[in-house]
Amino acid sequence: MFESAELGHKISKAVYDKEVPVLREALLEAQLDLIKSSKFPVIVLVGGVDGAGRGETVNLLNEWLDPRYVQTHGMGEPSDEELDRPMMWRFWRALPPKGKIGVFLGSWYTWPILNRVFGRTKVADLDQSLERAKRLEKMLTDEGALIIKFWLHLSKEKQEKRLKVLEKDPKTRWRVTDRDWEHYKMYDKFRTIHEAVIRHTSTAEAPWIIVEGTEPRYRSLTVGKVILEAIRKRLDEEGKKKKPTEASAPPLLPSIDDLHILKTLDLTQKLEKKHYETELEKYQGKLAILTRNPKFHDLTVIVAFEGNDAAGKGGSIRRITSALDARQYEVIPIAAPTEEERAQPYLWRFWRHIPRKGRVSIFDRTWYGRVLVERIEGYCSEADWMRAYSEINDFEAQLVRHNIVVVKFWLTISKEEQLRRFEDRQKTGFKRFKITEEDWRNREKWEAYEQAICDMVDRTSTEISPWTLVEANDKYFARVKILKTLTDRIESAMKALPDKKAS
Amino acid sequence: MFESAELGHKISKAVYDKEVPVLREALLEAQLDLIKSSKFPVIVLVGGVDGAGRGETVNLLNEWLDPRYVQTHGMGEPSDEELDRPMMWRFWRALPPKGKIGVFLGSWYTWPILNRVFGRTKVADLDQSLERAKRLEKMLTDEGALIIKFWLHLSKEKQEKRLKVLEKDPKTRWRVTDRDWEHYKMYDKFRTIHEAVIRHTSTAEAPWIIVEGTEPRYRSLTVGKVILEAIRKRLDEEGKKKKPTEASAPPLLPSIDDLHILKTLDLTQKLEKKHYETELEKYQGKLAILTRNPKFHDLTVIVAFEGNDAAGKGGSIRRITSALDARQYEVIPIAAPTEEERAQPYLWRFWRHIPRKGRVSIFDRTWYGRVLVERIEGYCSEADWMRAYSEINDFEAQLVRHNIVVVKFWLTISKEEQLRRFEDRQKTGFKRFKITEEDWRNREKWEAYEQAICDMVDRTSTEISPWTLVEANDKYFARVKILKTLTDRIESAMKALPDKKAS
Repeated sequence: MFESAELGHKISKAVYDKEVPVLREALLEAQLDLIKSSKFPVIVLVGGVDGAGRGETVNLLNEWLDPRYVQTHGMGEPSDEELDRPMMWRFWRALPPKGKIGVFLGSWYTWPILNRVFGRTKVADLDQSLERAKRLEKMLTDEGALIIKFWLHLSKEKQEKRLKVLEKDPKTRWRVTDRDWEHYKMYDKFRTIHEAVIRHTSTAEAPWIIVEGTEPRYRSLTVGKVILEAIRKRLDEEGKKKKPTEASAPPLLPSIDDLHILKTLDLTQKLEKKHYETELEKYQGKLAILTRNPKFHDLTVIVAFEGNDAAGKGGSIRRITSALDARQYEVIPIAAPTEEERAQPYLWRFWRHIPRKGRVSIFDRTWYGRVLVERIEGYCSEADWMRAYSEINDFEAQLVRHNIVVVKFWLTISKEEQLRRFEDRQKTGFKRFKITEEDWRNREKWEAYEQAICDMVDRTSTEISPWTLVEANDKYFARVKILKTLTDRIESAMKALPDKKAS
Repeated sequence: MFESAELGHKISKAVYDKEVPVLREALLEAQLDLIKSSKFPVIVLVGGVDGAGRGETVNLLNEWLDPRYVQTHGMGEPSDEELDRPMMWRFWRALPPKGKIGVFLGSWYTWPILNRVFGRTKVADLDQSLERAKRLEKMLTDEGALIIKFWLHLSKEKQEKRLKVLEKDPKTRWRVTDRDWEHYKMYDKFRTIHEAVIRHTSTAEAPWIIVEGTEPRYRSLTVGKVILEAIRKRLDEEGKKKKPTEASAPPLLPSIDDLHILKTLDLTQKLEKKHYETELEKYQGKLAILTRNPKFHDLTVIVAFEGNDAAGKGGSIRRITSALDARQYEVIPIAAPTEEERAQPYLWRFWRHIPRKGRVSIFDRTWYGRVLVERIEGYCSEADWMRAYSEINDFEAQLVRHNIVVVKFWLTISKEEQLRRFEDRQKTGFKRFKITEEDWRNREKWEAYEQAICDMVDRTSTEISPWTLVEANDKYFARVKILKTLTDRIESAMKALPDKKAS
């Protein structure tokens, strides 16, 4: 795999000096077209072995490109705010918006490689990490990103030579650390794992470009040209081709009999007021105690609310929040995306609200909008919402892996009950604002929504992140079911935590 | 000052039960109107003594209001990302956008008070902190924010009683900590300082509302009613009155003779190419070494670029960045504000880019847009840009106090030189994008800009954050002056740092 990158590639100074000015002008022009179109972001990963010129390459790119539209991230040690969230959060927050170029020195590959080399993880763990990286990149490219992954390589002999040269010069000595020599001694181990990583994650959407790092002119010119060609090609395509609007997969078949999951719900279930008040108090009290337990500081809770219009999401949310300390929760109402959100991949606007440990985020409508309203209203293409199921599963799996309790509620009411509530809202002064033309329009698409809901539940109710379907014709019944489910989930997550040492 | 809040205010349960439903409905309606208008944010500070019900009040507000449009912040210990920035950064990042209500438990008063009570600071320090808090609040209210500051008070005797009651009940025992008792013992000291704080910072724009905290019903009803009235009043005013568009202060007089600061610049200054190359290398080398010094990890550098169109900002920025490691700097091009930025006070979009320690942020155009383009083009009112001078001085003072080196460059070229460059840009293919209709229009306002620039320099070139005027007719001369100034400033800031212990 590294054969071509150990041949001793070289570019003469004469050729370099002739080619660089042309390349730089072309790069600037391509970057300008990228900014003007602002159709996609460019994500450049710079990986490779120590001493192969990763830092120099990143600096050079900033020199050749207009640095105002380049965002460079040295992904070193994560901050405490980052450690409190899933590993990928720090990359999400650093993603370049459309029109900009994000250069990452260190990437989602860095820690999986190091952990494996130092034996902190097993082969299977590495494979899983790589699988996740691939799915992430697939999602990003599906969302329009151009991903360019460079791997700067050095042979063992060249690495040794390079480190010695750097060490000899007083001006560069500081760059060679004990860790570099430690890594050098493990060259063969690194090489084996690097090769595995590159082999597994060179995909059609985001292949690795292996570049011999020995000779700076060759390395620089190669990297510059690859970037130029990649941006140019992509800009040309943007002009021409259309994105697939239909998924090439077999279409989702509407139910061919009259049986579906929502029909199995018994919407006549009720709770008497008196019984409700006792139960409400019981579970709110339980929730209050659970979330004030010192162990809760190690948990994060994300509650996702979806449901028919007027199904009682708002009221249910308030029954939860009133049991919590206001300092520990946030309610996030999902409305139309803002300008900054539209310049990012779909899931970005949810990632940005992932809370720190010890906190609860309640989403009033969620990332499922993609497979519900966006699907029905045609705000995105079939191809987009079809891939959203697995993207969402990946997203939630990352949350759960980070000890985040994800609790998802779908609140179901019958069509008749909805009509009753709509009419009631129109009659009652201060409730009138809650009912809009759009609600009436959505109601006309009742059957289409039913289909979308069933598909959603079938495809995204997973063992680690199940949907709870809530029979919501009776508000009392619904609220208690929600509170009970939530407290049960938190309780069992807390039991699964290791015991806190006395501090 | 606390007399009225020690009278033993009480509301009977009967009255409370009658009034609360009415209040809650009115609050929800006012909040809805606030969301619909989205004209201003509401900032609620909840301060006061331990045991006076601050936490309960915040929880109650979240229960009474629609929690989806309330953002609550318990400002506890700052995170490492926050400690790396000026103290106010964490409040700026938490400010509610227009239409939302931000509730702060703990505020910009918390630490100054605690520091003073525990003798970590002197009276003069406290006074300075309060002065800064006042100016901050003035700025926020000038920008449209509604600030409501509650101070929940308890007499010494009532505080003791309250803590004992909480301690007795197993359900609330966890809430009373040793620190609470420690604070109780210092009640009189706290009281003196609290009084001073309230006296100093009860302004016309943002007065403190002192509420007796002893009896929950009285406290809750008071807080709820104050908020309702404040929002209602403000919504009514929004409908009626116009904001002052002219400053009531005396107008800035245009220069009455032909002498102004820009005319004193000798624009004929030049540097020969050969000399330039030596100097450039010298200062870039120096900058490279300085920024790689371990001591630099304790500094932050903010470089602000302003100047005539085509004065060479971009080229100068690139001469700086090419000496830096790409991982440690960010260039921030200031364009029109985004939707999320427009929902915040003017300075918010600059605060969000304040970097962590050890990093360099270079602004290509800056917060001075307010007193330049916005003034000239009438994008904001005279009253707005007139107050911007002191707001900007406050902003920069906060940065400097936090060991941030703020270096501001104004690049001046002559009107003739600009014409030459404009024409040159139109001729040269890949430079053509740099020249727009707007540039030609701005050029017609040359004299108005000159006036604005002189006013800006006069009012914002301070000892702690001086402007460097750069004679930029000759690019070589300008770039070297910029690099030299920047390295000098960083060097002396570094010398002023305490020596690092060997680690």
